[in-house]
Amino acid sequence: MIYAGRDILRPAYLYNFGEIMEKKCINVGLIGYGTVGKGVVKILEENKKIALRKVGKPIKVKSICDLYPIDRTELYVKNFRNIIKDPEIDVVIELIGGYEPARTIIIESLKAGKNVITANKAVLAKYWDQIFTTAQECQKSIYYEAAVGGVIPVVQGLSEGLASEEILEIKGILNGTTNFILSEMTKKGVAYEEALKGAQNAGFAEADPSFDVKGVDTANKLAILASLAWGGWIKVKDISVKGIADLDIDDVLIAKNFGYDIKLIGSAEKAKDGIDLSVQPCLVNHHHAFATVENEYNAVMITGKDSGDVLFYGKGAGQGPAASAVVSDIINMSEFIVTNTAGIVPEVVYDRKKKIKILPAGRSKAPYYLRFSVADKPGVLAKISGILGKFKVSIASVSQPDMEEDGITEIIVTTHKTSRENLEKALKQIDATKSIVKAKTVKIKIEN
Amino acid sequence: MIYAGRDILRPAYLYNFGEIMEKKCINVGLIGYGTVGKGVVKILEENKKIALRKVGKPIKVKSICDLYPIDRTELYVKNFRNIIKDPEIDVVIELIGGYEPARTIIIESLKAGKNVITANKAVLAKYWDQIFTTAQECQKSIYYEAAVGGVIPVVQGLSEGLASEEILEIKGILNGTTNFILSEMTKKGVAYEEALKGAQNAGFAEADPSFDVKGVDTANKLAILASLAWGGWIKVKDISVKGIADLDIDDVLIAKNFGYDIKLIGSAEKAKDGIDLSVQPCLVNHHHAFATVENEYNAVMITGKDSGDVLFYGKGAGQGPAASAVVSDIINMSEFIVTNTAGIVPEVVYDRKKKIKILPAGRSKAPYYLRFSVADKPGVLAKISGILGKFKVSIASVSQPDMEEDGITEIIVTTHKTSRENLEKALKQIDATKSIVKAKTVKIKIEN
Repeated sequence: MIYAGRDILRPAYLYNFGEIMEKKCINVGLIGYGTVGKGVVKILEENKKIALRKVGKPIKVKSICDLYPIDRTELYVKNFRNIIKDPEIDVVIELIGGYEPARTIIIESLKAGKNVITANKAVLAKYWDQIFTTAQECQKSIYYEAAVGGVIPVVQGLSEGLASEEILEIKGILNGTTNFILSEMTKKGVAYEEALKGAQNAGFAEADPSFDVKGVDTANKLAILASLAWGGWIKVKDISVKGIADLDIDDVLIAKNFGYDIKLIGSAEKAKDGIDLSVQPCLVNHHHAFATVENEYNAVMITGKDSGDVLFYGKGAGQGPAASAVVSDIINMSEFIVTNTAGIVPEVVYDRKKKIKILPAGRSKAPYYLRFSVADKPGVLAKISGILGKFKVSIASVSQPDMEEDGITEIIVTTHKTSRENLEKALKQIDATKSIVKAKTVKIKIEN
Repeated sequence: MIYAGRDILRPAYLYNFGEIMEKKCINVGLIGYGTVGKGVVKILEENKKIALRKVGKPIKVKSICDLYPIDRTELYVKNFRNIIKDPEIDVVIELIGGYEPARTIIIESLKAGKNVITANKAVLAKYWDQIFTTAQECQKSIYYEAAVGGVIPVVQGLSEGLASEEILEIKGILNGTTNFILSEMTKKGVAYEEALKGAQNAGFAEADPSFDVKGVDTANKLAILASLAWGGWIKVKDISVKGIADLDIDDVLIAKNFGYDIKLIGSAEKAKDGIDLSVQPCLVNHHHAFATVENEYNAVMITGKDSGDVLFYGKGAGQGPAASAVVSDIINMSEFIVTNTAGIVPEVVYDRKKKIKILPAGRSKAPYYLRFSVADKPGVLAKISGILGKFKVSIASVSQPDMEEDGITEIIVTTHKTSRENLEKALKQIDATKSIVKAKTVKIKIEN
C-alpha cells in the first residue's frame, strides 16, 4: 500500500491521496498475435507517453502467446495457461477469436484473478451468461469495446453515455466486410462474387467469409448491444438472420436509381411486450445517416426515449482501429488497476434472473421493396396488387423498368409500412401463381 | 461499512463483495431549476427502475435551489450554500449556467467533499485550471457530459473511448441554435434575421442569442474538447472565432447550388509544432458526414492517428437530450459513490504544468469559397486571378452567376488549399482596388 505522495513514479496531478498499487508497472499478457495483436503491441509502444500520462505507471507487454513462435522471442509463451497462472500479470487480452479455447481463456483468467480484455464478439454473445456471472463472482473487469463496431466506442456509449435512457431502438451497420462488399456492388455495379473478391484483395474479407456474409457476425454484435441495452441476455438464436450472399446486383442497381443504398443492418426494436430482432439487407434512403457509411466503416444508431437518435460512426475493421480500441480498454482498465479499484463497479450490469421477451421476427412494421419477375402480359399487375391488398399490404409505388427478356418482365413495387408476416403470406400466394410469376419474388426491407 | 451480501437493498448481481456505502440512497442537490433542471427531475422519476438496476440504491433529489420558489415546495432551498453544506447530499448538480455564482458553487461543493455534475461549458472553459485542480486536491469527481454536444457522449468518447489515441483533429457542429438557424436559411432561403426569429419561436434560440450566434458557445465547447484531447488547458482566447450573424443569404444559396451546405464549425488541428483552433462558418460538401446534421443536431468528428475518423451525432439542444446526459452522469457517478470509489480515478487527466503551443489562426491550409462583387467590365477576372496568383492562392473553379445589378456583378471563386494568411493578404490587395471591387469580398472556408 503506497500513497501517491510517496511514490515517485506517479505524477502529482493524478492522485493526491488514496491507495496505489505497489508494482512499478501494469503487466499485460497477450493471447493471440495476429493482425490485431501486433497492432496492440505497436500502439502500446508508440503511444506509451499517452498511456503513462493517463495511468501514471507504464503498461508493459510481459508475455505473448500464439500457436506458433513469434518474432518477439523474449516474450513468447507457448501455453496460454502460463500467462493465466503468472502472478505478475494484471490483464489478460484474448485476441484469438472463435469459441474455444477463447471461452476457457476468459473464464480461467477471471477465476485466476485477472482482468480481461477481449475483441471476441462470438464468444461474448454465446457465453454472455457464463462470462459475466463469472466476472461478478470473481469481481473482476472484462472490457470488450473492440468487439462491437471496431474503433467506435459504442459499448461504452450505450452502457454509460446513455445510462439513463429507456432504449427504444438500436440499428447498426456492424460488419465491415459486408459493408465493403455492398459498397463495391453499389459503386461499381459488380455482382456479389466479384465484389467479394475485391474485398478479399483489399484485406477486408477472410478466405472463408461465411461468418460475415451470412450475417452471423452482425447478429453476434447485435446480441451484445441488445443484452447491454435491456440488461438481460439476448441470444443470437433470438435474432432472425439473413445475409447478403443471395443479393442480386439488379436489385442493388434498381434501388440505386430509386434513391436507395443497400446495407446489412442489425436491428433491435423495443415494443410494449418484447424485443424484435433482425439482421437483413435493407435499403436506406440517400438522405439517411447510414447512406454515407461506406466501405469498412460501421455505424450504430441508438434511439432513447429522452435522448432521441444518437449516432456513432467509425472504422469497423482494420488493424489500427481494432487495436486502438483494445489499447483504450487497456488504459481505461489500468486506471482502476493502479488504484486497486478494478472490478468494483461492473462494466456490464447483467442480472441473469431478468427475462426478456423476444417477439416473433418481423412483427414490427416496415416498408418493403419488392421485385416481381412476371409474364409480360396484361392483367398481371391487377392480379398481384389484388393479392397484396387482400393481405393488407398497401402499395406506395409501382414501376416497370425496361428489363423484358424472353417474355419475362420485372415489376418493382414499394409498399407502405406492413408487417413482414402479412407480406410473406401475400408473397407466398403470389409466387404460387405459376402462370404469372416466373421466379421467386425478391423482398428487401426499406429502412426509414 | 456494509458488505453486499448483508445489504438487502442491493441486488446480488451487482457486487458480491467490496465496501458499500451505508446510506440507503444517493442524495442529489440540484441548483438551477430551469428547463434542464426540470427535465432531470422528470427523468430521474420516470426512469428510477433503470437507475436502481444500475446503481443498486435509489437516487433521490433531496433539495432544489432556484432564484424563485418552485412548485416542488418541499424540496425548495433558497440559498445554494444550504445544499453545499448539507452532509447528506452526495452530488451537487449545477445547472444555472454563466460564470458566477456557478464557479463558486462548483469550487465550494468540491471543497465541501461533494461530487459535482454540471452542464455549464462557459464556466468549465474559463475556469478549467481552477476547477480541475480543486477536484484533484479534493479527490472528488466532476462530470459534465451535457456541457458539450448535448446528449452525445463525446466527452467520454474522447477521454475514454479514444484513450489510446494521438488525437490529430477535432471538428464539430457544437451549437444547436446556430445549426438550426443555418438549416432554416438553407432550406427556406430566408435571411439570417428571419431564420433567427424562426429559431426563437421554435425554442432553439434565446431572446438574446449573441452568445450562440457570435460563436462563443461553440468556442467554449471546442476549448473543452481540445483541453481533453491534448491534456493541458486550451483557452477560449486561443481560438479564432467568427460567428454567423454576418452571413449573406446569397452565399448560402449560391453554395447550395454548388453542392455545399453551410455549418458553423469548431475546429482544432494538431500540427507538428502546436494546435490550430478556429470557429467559423464553413461550407461542407453534400457527401460530407456533417451535411446531414440539421436543425438542433450536433456532431463531432474526432480523428486519431490509429483510429481514423470517429463521428458522434445527436441532439445538441432541448430539454430531453440535455437532461438525459445529466442523468446519465448521475447514474455513472453514483455507481462509484455507492462503492466508495468516486473521485479515485479522475475523469479529466489534467496536468497544469503541461504547456500546449497555440498556432496563429489559419496557418493550416484549406480551400475557400470567395465571392467578389465587381464592376461588370472586361479584364476584372484577369486582375483578380493575377493578385490571387501572386499570393500563391490557386484557383479551383470560377463562375459567374447571373446576378448583375446596377453594373455590379458577382464572381464566385473556389480555391485549392491555401493558407488563410496568404489568402487574406491577397483579398486585402484585391479589395483595395476600388475601380474594380465594389464591396468587401466574402470568404468562407470549405471543409473537406
